[in-house]
Amino acid sequence: MAITLGDNRYGKAEVRLVRVVRDGARHELRDLTVSVALAGDLAAAHEGDNSGVLPTDTQKNTVYAFAKRYGVGEPEAFGLLLARHFVDTQPTISWARVDLIEHPWSRLGPHSFARDGGPTRVASVTVTGDASHVVSGLAGLVLLNTTDSEFHGYVRDGYTTLPETTDRVLATEVSARWRWASVGAAASWGASFQGVRDALVEAFVETYSYSLQQTLYAMGSRALEKQPELAEVRLVLPNKHHFLVDLAPFGLDNDNEVYVATDRPYGLIEGTVLRDDAPPAPEAW
Amino acid sequence: MAITLGDNRYGKAEVRLVRVVRDGARHELRDLTVSVALAGDLAAAHEGDNSGVLPTDTQKNTVYAFAKRYGVGEPEAFGLLLARHFVDTQPTISWARVDLIEHPWSRLGPHSFARDGGPTRVASVTVTGDASHVVSGLAGLVLLNTTDSEFHGYVRDGYTTLPETTDRVLATEVSARWRWASVGAAASWGASFQGVRDALVEAFVETYSYSLQQTLYAMGSRALEKQPELAEVRLVLPNKHHFLVDLAPFGLDNDNEVYVATDRPYGLIEGTVLRDDAPPAPEAW
Amino acid sequence: MAITLGDNRYGKAEVRLVRVVRDGARHELRDLTVSVALAGDLAAAHEGDNSGVLPTDTQKNTVYAFAKRYGVGEPEAFGLLLARHFVDTQPTISWARVDLIEHPWSRLGPHSFARDGGPTRVASVTVTGDASHVVSGLAGLVLLNTTDSEFHGYVRDGYTTLPETTDRVLATEVSARWRWASVGAAASWGASFQGVRDALVEAFVETYSYSLQQTLYAMGSRALEKQPELAEVRLVLPNKHHFLVDLAPFGLDNDNEVYVATDRPYGLIEGTVLRDDAPPAPEAW
Amino acid sequence: MAITLGDNRYGKAEVRLVRVVRDGARHELRDLTVSVALAGDLAAAHEGDNSGVLPTDTQKNTVYAFAKRYGVGEPEAFGLLLARHFVDTQPTISWARVDLIEHPWSRLGPHSFARDGGPTRVASVTVTGDASHVVSGLAGLVLLNTTDSEFHGYVRDGYTTLPETTDRVLATEVSARWRWASVGAAASWGASFQGVRDALVEAFVETYSYSLQQTLYAMGSRALEKQPELAEVRLVLPNKHHFLVDLAPFGLDNDNEVYVATDRPYGLIEGTVLRDDAPPAPEAW
Repeated sequence: MAITLGDNRYGKAEVRLVRVVRDGARHELRDLTVSVALAGDLAAAHEGDNSGVLPTDTQKNTVYAFAKRYGVGEPEAFGLLLARHFVDTQPTISWARVDLIEHPWSRLGPHSFARDGGPTRVASVTVTGDASHVVSGLAGLVLLNTTDSEFHGYVRDGYTTLPETTDRVLATEVSARWRWASVGAAASWGASFQGVRDALVEAFVETYSYSLQQTLYAMGSRALEKQPELAEVRLVLPNKHHFLVDLAPFGLDNDNEVYVATDRPYGLIEGTVLRDDAPPAPEAW
Repeated sequence: MAITLGDNRYGKAEVRLVRVVRDGARHELRDLTVSVALAGDLAAAHEGDNSGVLPTDTQKNTVYAFAKRYGVGEPEAFGLLLARHFVDTQPTISWARVDLIEHPWSRLGPHSFARDGGPTRVASVTVTGDASHVVSGLAGLVLLNTTDSEFHGYVRDGYTTLPETTDRVLATEVSARWRWASVGAAASWGASFQGVRDALVEAFVETYSYSLQQTLYAMGSRALEKQPELAEVRLVLPNKHHFLVDLAPFGLDNDNEVYVATDRPYGLIEGTVLRDDAPPAPEAW
Repeated sequence: MAITLGDNRYGKAEVRLVRVVRDGARHELRDLTVSVALAGDLAAAHEGDNSGVLPTDTQKNTVYAFAKRYGVGEPEAFGLLLARHFVDTQPTISWARVDLIEHPWSRLGPHSFARDGGPTRVASVTVTGDASHVVSGLAGLVLLNTTDSEFHGYVRDGYTTLPETTDRVLATEVSARWRWASVGAAASWGASFQGVRDALVEAFVETYSYSLQQTLYAMGSRALEKQPELAEVRLVLPNKHHFLVDLAPFGLDNDNEVYVATDRPYGLIEGTVLRDDAPPAPEAW
Repeated sequence: MAITLGDNRYGKAEVRLVRVVRDGARHELRDLTVSVALAGDLAAAHEGDNSGVLPTDTQKNTVYAFAKRYGVGEPEAFGLLLARHFVDTQPTISWARVDLIEHPWSRLGPHSFARDGGPTRVASVTVTGDASHVVSGLAGLVLLNTTDSEFHGYVRDGYTTLPETTDRVLATEVSARWRWASVGAAASWGASFQGVRDALVEAFVETYSYSLQQTLYAMGSRALEKQPELAEVRLVLPNKHHFLVDLAPFGLDNDNEVYVATDRPYGLIEGTVLRDDAPPAPEAW
């Protein structure tokens, strides 16, 4: 019986980068949190030989230097540039992943901005010797319908107490990630993001829902229908329960008007929607 | 030497309330976190006699019942209604405070909403036997100027290493609270909030800054100038440092383009701006 | 009507300091988060004149330099040293506060430690021209009794639904701060902290409780009885509700065995216990 | 081109359960956060047909009812009971995962406890029609060595600025999960947990380190050597950087005595250590 090293990776996580472009009076701002992870032939490193290790400090420096040298455009493009650099320049490194979170800002003036507290845009780029994968996404998009949501007809067993309902609040915090079918240099990363975001929101708003699972599928398929560049969409939808308060003890009815918003526990609905003809790529995630 | 009870209060904190108005196809939504605190003649309670204690559970119930019975309009008005109720109906209670946080939502459709991740609106209402005070405010407003900010001419001592600068990023997360000079039933709570928020943002954007203290004073005085209903403004402004990355080791200059956004430590600038002629009211805070 | 500057302060917050003493093979470790706030004649600073401003960056440097020069012993002593320094060396500064959080570690070996996840020790030191105040404290001490807690005999009104109980779980997360009656150079800061902590825990454990208010008073008075160096104790006790789960629908009773621990809302019980003969010192807080 | 449903699961997350055993004067306490996820033939659910859906509310009820009916012993055993129940009783469900976090408490008296802020114990149980997998683990174990850590001999490129060191602080927050080679009814879950925890700590303390990767491998292999019941160990080790403060500007040296503890960015070292002869089981994770 021998003990051995299995899968491993290392890198610098959560590098906070703010890039300003000052070409004239009107400045541009880009605010990213960048995490790098590298893998390859690193068995020696696990025995104390660092001759194949690119320090995480150097990875951090590279993020900042690239931000100056090449600028920071769309997160996906910046991530591809970084990931390719590590794989191409480091003999021991055969796999690089760069995860990016973009924190949005709204313009207030030529050089003034307010942090936009809405959902963040995310990207996850994976580069190996011969391939590149891009997963784009968003996090923190909280949506709520005050009606057009039912839940009934479900399994009943000895532990069932939930009453059936034909009118409830449906609320979720959307975390979505979608894989690009192919990765080209000139992809319209920004336009695609807006397209997917709009599709997800529209499907949530327009779906008369019998379950959050049904809404999830509607959201994912809407995104795929509208955006041919995507191969699959993965959604994580916590069911943010809003429970009707029982006001009968106070002589009041409650016709879907007064709710308590709860933190825990919550339902958690997760699912993938994909194209039949898209080759799978588990290594992209 | 005797040991005795000093100041005390108790209440239910963080009651999560979502109120839907369904008068027709177009629903309205209000989302609040409400905290109640009561004080008065409660010495007996501290010796195990609960005969003067209104349970915090009952306070919570009252929040929900009032939301149905009277509706939830502006946070300040709802808070005044609640606080007055507790003082007027409980013989042992001579002081009530209701703190409210409003979580904003944006409309997506007749019954569909997206959580607006921007700053929250807050209110703190204090009612005693014969008086009412209202403090309104906001939290979580993150602002940034990429230029028009200098910092120099400061004290130097044996522990000084900071270089002087005539061009830096200035960023802060505004927490502001302002006291109403008087509390009337028909106050324009919502319009006032928008007015103060706009004044704070405009002053931040328009002030050529030599320190965050200077910007703080400009923000507070702008709000007072524009909104005669306010007696004083208190601002808490963390200085969210953005440091220039030294790119010289990589043969690159950095002309105010690439920054690291830091978490800790941070400067913390706090100050009050007030009207000379407004009687102070420390009990409002 | 004129607008003017009111109370204000500024400083560097959350300076993370780890101090190692390496006198021999057995190292010592002290881990603090230090925040400095200064006030004084700073009106000019609010108009853009920095000639009286000691930068927050310099305050940070001073924390680290003092940690080397004088070592870091008890948090209170280190805070007094820093606060006195700022008041004595800066002509514009007449008030300094240093807040310290000590993060505890347990020893694993001569130079090895594990972070102790228990309560943190805190201290808040205030120095003016002629006076020093020290408030010591702790945060994050979570205590729970599974019985010997009742709650009944309280006020009932039209919003009451809470059933009375003669046996419930009582749980709280203790945040306590206590003011020293006087501040001497040779105070036994560490021994006093242990004494107060033990007194608070013992009183919680030994008190047969009819309300959390009663338990609060028992805790505060126990601390004052045992520790003559204290003038007053302030306690903030969230009532961390544990509700019995209704298992009747499943044909099961629940004799105080199965609870749901809830997050929000929570009761919040706050109170001061003090010595009659101790002169008040609101400026210490 | 068709759009279709891919992998999916759903369940109730973060059910907070506190179980008290009151057999006599000396009570026992167990405090868990339980999350359930189910998968199977759920395509219809994604089209609005709930006839195969066991509501997440019922899953929650089952957790509480089982806590009463069977008691709560070791997390792994309780998780196996729950997961097997869902797979065996629900025709549409072919896969169940139960994730458990145990929050530790220390005894203060017969019915009194203090929350132990140290690392939490975790377990993840997966049951399918014919198989069961158990992954145990811990989270939040923060370890630090003040010496016996070097880092040098690494790759240098155009973005390198890190100085080599032969003496640094090494600190990490251990998140570890280990897979049981087989799952028997009478496993010594508790004793195994203590054994692995001790092995991880000992290896961290005793390893003279040339990199966190080396320490990771030492920790994982130590656990496997000591605990024959384990097939593999996965470690996630953030490198919690402690940087020496430059005190030279103040005329002070800093011989590894004064550090700033940083939050972000941080190194992130992840790796698996496994037995050669253990069949892989990716479905356990």
